Amino acid sequence: MSSGAVPLIERKKSGGELAPSEIRSLLAGYLDRSIPDYQVAAWLMAVCWRGMTEGETLAMTQAMVDTGATLEWASLDRPTVDKHSTGGVGDKTSLVLVPLMAEAGAAFVKMSGRGLGHTGGTLDKLESIAGFRTELGLEEMSAQVRRIGCALVGQSPALVPADGALYSLRDVTATVNSVPLIASSIMSKKLAGGAGTIVLDVKWGSGAFMPTQEAARELARALVRIGEGAGRRTRAVLSSMREPLGRAVGNALEVREALDTLNGGGPADLWALTVELGTHLMLLSGLASSADDAVRTLTALRDSGAAARRMEMLVEAQGGDPRVVARPDLLPAAPIVRTVAADGEGWVAEADARTVAEAALQLGAGRLRKGDPVDPAVGVAVLARVGDRLAPGAPLAGVHARTEAAAEAAETHLRAAFRLSPEVVAAPVDLYETVG
Amino acid sequence: MSSGAVPLIERKKSGGELAPSEIRSLLAGYLDRSIPDYQVAAWLMAVCWRGMTEGETLAMTQAMVDTGATLEWASLDRPTVDKHSTGGVGDKTSLVLVPLMAEAGAAFVKMSGRGLGHTGGTLDKLESIAGFRTELGLEEMSAQVRRIGCALVGQSPALVPADGALYSLRDVTATVNSVPLIASSIMSKKLAGGAGTIVLDVKWGSGAFMPTQEAARELARALVRIGEGAGRRTRAVLSSMREPLGRAVGNALEVREALDTLNGGGPADLWALTVELGTHLMLLSGLASSADDAVRTLTALRDSGAAARRMEMLVEAQGGDPRVVARPDLLPAAPIVRTVAADGEGWVAEADARTVAEAALQLGAGRLRKGDPVDPAVGVAVLARVGDRLAPGAPLAGVHARTEAAAEAAETHLRAAFRLSPEVVAAPVDLYETVG
Repeated sequence: MSSGAVPLIERKKSGGELAPSEIRSLLAGYLDRSIPDYQVAAWLMAVCWRGMTEGETLAMTQAMVDTGATLEWASLDRPTVDKHSTGGVGDKTSLVLVPLMAEAGAAFVKMSGRGLGHTGGTLDKLESIAGFRTELGLEEMSAQVRRIGCALVGQSPALVPADGALYSLRDVTATVNSVPLIASSIMSKKLAGGAGTIVLDVKWGSGAFMPTQEAARELARALVRIGEGAGRRTRAVLSSMREPLGRAVGNALEVREALDTLNGGGPADLWALTVELGTHLMLLSGLASSADDAVRTLTALRDSGAAARRMEMLVEAQGGDPRVVARPDLLPAAPIVRTVAADGEGWVAEADARTVAEAALQLGAGRLRKGDPVDPAVGVAVLARVGDRLAPGAPLAGVHARTEAAAEAAETHLRAAFRLSPEVVAAPVDLYETVG
Repeated sequence: MSSGAVPLIERKKSGGELAPSEIRSLLAGYLDRSIPDYQVAAWLMAVCWRGMTEGETLAMTQAMVDTGATLEWASLDRPTVDKHSTGGVGDKTSLVLVPLMAEAGAAFVKMSGRGLGHTGGTLDKLESIAGFRTELGLEEMSAQVRRIGCALVGQSPALVPADGALYSLRDVTATVNSVPLIASSIMSKKLAGGAGTIVLDVKWGSGAFMPTQEAARELARALVRIGEGAGRRTRAVLSSMREPLGRAVGNALEVREALDTLNGGGPADLWALTVELGTHLMLLSGLASSADDAVRTLTALRDSGAAARRMEMLVEAQGGDPRVVARPDLLPAAPIVRTVAADGEGWVAEADARTVAEAALQLGAGRLRKGDPVDPAVGVAVLARVGDRLAPGAPLAGVHARTEAAAEAAETHLRAAFRLSPEVVAAPVDLYETVG
């Protein structure tokens, strides 16, 4: 097979197209080691160069799915939904959306990963709830979904084993950044998860993987084409990640903000995005007949406390203390909280998501290497948002730190995230763009 | 170092430039295995994609040279010259040019390789002279050059060891076809060979590595830039390889044609190319004051028999029977010689080099895999050239075969090489284009 890969690499290198069976044989050969990794690396770089056709991308995704188990929900009496975010700063939407959609009548198994670099991971956030287990077996998970309609778990290693193997090679060969490779990686896990409806939150801006709205749109289109090509109802929402989502960046801080939101409080942008994604899930899965209907239903389920009660069931089912939902003060808290005050005055022109994330990472909320521990209590509360008018000494952010030295360093780092303007800056109105 | 390679691959992938020290570290890391081959493969494909700047190509070439020994000719009392051909069908020019230039006053060590696929190798040709040794040690070779001014030897494994290692990876990752990689591979061996003057014969057409004159020109420019950047007097000559060079294709047949040419006979195109390359070598190395002067000198050295006597010295020095130069009939001959006659009549419109080479390969004159043996006696004599007017039954080619069955198969294959036209076809006048 080793010499058999050369014509396939050559064809992609010269801009040609591979047949589904050829893509399948490359992937199978990589996994069973009959095709050496240097040939796969050359092919991956050729894909970065020439891209993949729609047919190749779908074939790649399905070949990845076929390397592992797939979940099957046909016997459920409720529509299955799923959601994926391409990753941002302060993105705790899943923690609100999953119990809310379960309460609205959907079955929602959200599989998530851990944080790496400047992007937080849902698993790390959930584990700031004492006792919360994110590693459920497929049977336990299935039983829980039948009982309470939702689960918030780690990505099952039984699903799409090719993805981890391929990603580890892409990571060391500078071939991560390729729309068809990113899209097939994301969608293979969604397809294997078995949901009939998939909504994708594709973020762009300084705190996101995609720097521009244009790049995010290209990825969104690729994701939607795969989902539709595989027979799933699929839609993508583009959302901005220039400022962090909500105010909290850091594990327990973010869980607290998500619980506040389920309890009817929380920042407006987090609730708005949750409702946007939930509306598409409800429309596509037949749980609502119109967008207005969906928004009314989701708002009512929050206002009645039903969604929060659903979150209590979820926390309890997965080994956590359900009282945390009504009493977020039970979550771990940092010993040192310091307010970063504005030097000057004026309108906030920038509150850079990436810089805020770096400060949180520095405090211990995230990790630079896989396997590093994270500190659940530390993080940043962003107190000034773009368009706010600040008086001298007004708070920019709160630093939640383990030590004074760490707080000091984070404060210095954080100041660079904010830029004040002497002229009026309007608060950004980010309209969601949908694809699909 | 493994993680250190990622930013370098990334930079090349995004169209940036690597510093000489970075290219050096990639190559060193590949050779000492601190950079895994999958990272080198990804980088090679990124080079195919983005190319290399002039600075990168020169740095790559010099880094390759520095992985091995280099030859030093400073103490010689004659100018050192070298020549490289990018490979063609029936190209036996080195066998004529090397003794001719030695007789003209140059020191000429020509290192060559073996044939693979449709391209013949000078070593295979030379070994059809019984007893001829192509593997001389560096000291023996040096002594021979001091004594008789020339040597025809195999590429020394002590020179540019990186080239073989890198080529074997390129071969299995579809990254052979890249101008800067081809150019640095060729020129690293020329630079390590130590000659002050280098002339490159870059061929284009069906029997060559470069399909078009345009592609050959691009490679020629890259080769000359490297040579000049490294302080060598360098020029490239573009020559057509649509028809085979000369008439003979096959090892002993080609040696015989080269010896005929040294003896004053032989085909006009072979002598013309020899004089063209020799003229540039003489002009650049100061052995002639004008092109006319060079052509007169080279022709006189052939006509006087001096070049042939120099070839006798070379054959004798390397263990062969020097009588073969005056009596080429001492070379091995095939038991079966069959003439392929034209079916129809008309002007020869095509005598395709590649198809002729395939027929010779089929007869056993070449090899498909490294290490396979070759048959010195077999091959093809091309008897009809483009522009010839053929009567019905006129000879197209002679097949020199080991068996009747092989001759039969070769005849069928050869017929496809020739196309006759009912209208006049002019003999092509291929003017040489020079670069540098």
